[in-house]
Amino acid sequence: MVINVRGYAAHSADSPLGLFSFVRRDPRPNDVVMEILYAGVCHSDIHSVRNDWGNAKHPMVPGHEIIGRITAAGADVTRFKVGDHVGVGCMVDSCQHCRACADGLEQYCEEGNTLTYNDFDRHDGMPTYGGYSERIVVSDKFVVKVPDGLDLAGAAPLLCAGITTWSPLRHWKVGPGSKVAVVGLGGLGHMALKLAKALGADVTLFSRSPGKEDDAKRLGADRVVISTDEAQMAAVHGQFDLIIDTVPYVHDVNPYVATLALSGTVVMVGYLGPLEPLLNSGPLVLGRKAVAGSVIGGITETQEMLDFCGQHGITSDVEVIRIQTINEAYERMLKSNVKYRFVIDLESLKEHVTEA
Amino acid sequence: MVINVRGYAAHSADSPLGLFSFVRRDPRPNDVVMEILYAGVCHSDIHSVRNDWGNAKHPMVPGHEIIGRITAAGADVTRFKVGDHVGVGCMVDSCQHCRACADGLEQYCEEGNTLTYNDFDRHDGMPTYGGYSERIVVSDKFVVKVPDGLDLAGAAPLLCAGITTWSPLRHWKVGPGSKVAVVGLGGLGHMALKLAKALGADVTLFSRSPGKEDDAKRLGADRVVISTDEAQMAAVHGQFDLIIDTVPYVHDVNPYVATLALSGTVVMVGYLGPLEPLLNSGPLVLGRKAVAGSVIGGITETQEMLDFCGQHGITSDVEVIRIQTINEAYERMLKSNVKYRFVIDLESLKEHVTEA
Ligand SMILES: [Zn+2]
Ligand SMILES: [Zn+2]
Ligand SMILES: [Zn+2]
Ligand SMILES: [Zn+2]
Repeated sequence: MVINVRGYAAHSADSPLGLFSFVRRDPRPNDVVMEILYAGVCHSDIHSVRNDWGNAKHPMVPGHEIIGRITAAGADVTRFKVGDHVGVGCMVDSCQHCRACADGLEQYCEEGNTLTYNDFDRHDGMPTYGGYSERIVVSDKFVVKVPDGLDLAGAAPLLCAGITTWSPLRHWKVGPGSKVAVVGLGGLGHMALKLAKALGADVTLFSRSPGKEDDAKRLGADRVVISTDEAQMAAVHGQFDLIIDTVPYVHDVNPYVATLALSGTVVMVGYLGPLEPLLNSGPLVLGRKAVAGSVIGGITETQEMLDFCGQHGITSDVEVIRIQTINEAYERMLKSNVKYRFVIDLESLKEHVTEA
Repeated sequence: MVINVRGYAAHSADSPLGLFSFVRRDPRPNDVVMEILYAGVCHSDIHSVRNDWGNAKHPMVPGHEIIGRITAAGADVTRFKVGDHVGVGCMVDSCQHCRACADGLEQYCEEGNTLTYNDFDRHDGMPTYGGYSERIVVSDKFVVKVPDGLDLAGAAPLLCAGITTWSPLRHWKVGPGSKVAVVGLGGLGHMALKLAKALGADVTLFSRSPGKEDDAKRLGADRVVISTDEAQMAAVHGQFDLIIDTVPYVHDVNPYVATLALSGTVVMVGYLGPLEPLLNSGPLVLGRKAVAGSVIGGITETQEMLDFCGQHGITSDVEVIRIQTINEAYERMLKSNVKYRFVIDLESLKEHVTEA
């Protein structure tokens, strides 16, 4: 017994996404079945589809910022009931017994967590397919509740862009009195501004180009510093307790280290790879500074973040699209031409008559 | 009014150290005058004398691991009395009003602290001269008490090598249950082993070459891992909460990052400069790890460290030398031929009849 599902998939690294029919597992006792309402479009989706990381498994149904409604729940599911609005992020499973999992840090599962797409279920070995689809079957442990009143389309990006910035803000204990800076104003950056501001921090946006002042301030920044302007950079020397660096490509981290206060940390959440130009340890030593990294967040803290967003009325700034325009959306994202996240309205998928 | 003092100085970057007569200030109301008994010989002394850092001021009297006895105290000095055994480390003054100073972190003084040698007094502009000398005049705020019963020669290196490793061990909250590794077995490394062990941590030494097992275990290591042995490195993958990297020259930090546990930190205390080969941010992101730095320690924590050493009977392993052999000692240090610190017995300075 399996569930037939339609979605959008890429069949190779260089083919566009198009309609794809596939199967999901019959729900296990601890599974819920969700009708997917919205799916955010993350930069990772493009990287994965195009095999930029060398691990693509095609056909691939991307999407790990998923908001939906529960349509069925297994016998052992107690936290959710049919009709609940829920979310699923980047992970759908983990080992559940390592130290990281025991600490609610499933994103760092020592045995590797199971990704929402481009992975294999750890129990039955079936491929995992993501949120660009009608419905999904997920272990209830990896499902979070969407607080009442939160816009559902705007909530979708919280599941990746939101938690990716929330987790380091919390781990490095940002609150009133903290001076936080954010590098880059994209999907992650705009969430970092909103969340840091709502946590009570003084918030600065580093931007490479002018013209983002109004938008940045609307999103929560107290000021914008143009990172290519030496005088502006010198003026914030030694200022920040935490810098969330969301830039997804290689870039010079040294100028940001210079703006850290004593014992401050630059936490990289966008770029994985060699730090070039060379990172200089001198300023780290002489100011007890750190360059660190962080990836998404655990399930418990994802729920905490959603609840916080519910209390503060925080969602992502989104442009809702039909799934039929996903390939054009990818092209626009590659030009940073989106404020600040595309979200697919899965209602559009119903326009396809079932020819598959 | 000034105090005439004899010491050993280098008159240029490429001349050997030799007898030198100079003056120290008449003590101010908050100064103490110390007769110097022992002075540790730090690698920084060689770098400073030879102008490796481009800031040498000659003639230079090195020495910032100083143990002595108080022979006079200014009218405002209340914490010390004549006869007390005291220590002076790398700093003899700081601004005393910045946020770092207010937090007892004078080593990170925003206006720059005053170094024990190769610097200028911030009040009268006189050159500062270090511990390779008969006596020193120091503001009482930068003087620490040596606990009774601690071997005075062995205590000298605590003022730099000791505090440099103690401060990060404390800042990163090492205690029972912590897994700590130390890179490099020199003056700093051997102190890191002793202090981490006494704090209750499980302690590993990373060494590039075999043959240090017995010594490392005697000093506090639970095991030695040969860092050039891939199998041994793989066996400690993901293990350590904190790695104290004491290596003073450029080296690859990536293999040590791989041995960090989730949320672990490599703290560099020896090398200031570009990290080459390129540091890879991927493992930082995927394990919430950090590469950080730390320099010496504050005065309050230096006293805390000395008191801890008094309680645990911890001193440096030293080879006591006559000051007349300092140039040979430098040559041996450059070949790492010392276990683990040379300490000058200033009694030897009295062998010089006053011909100067
Ligand atoms: Zn994502
Ligand atoms: Zn796990
Ligand atoms: Zn030193
Ligand atoms: Zn200061």
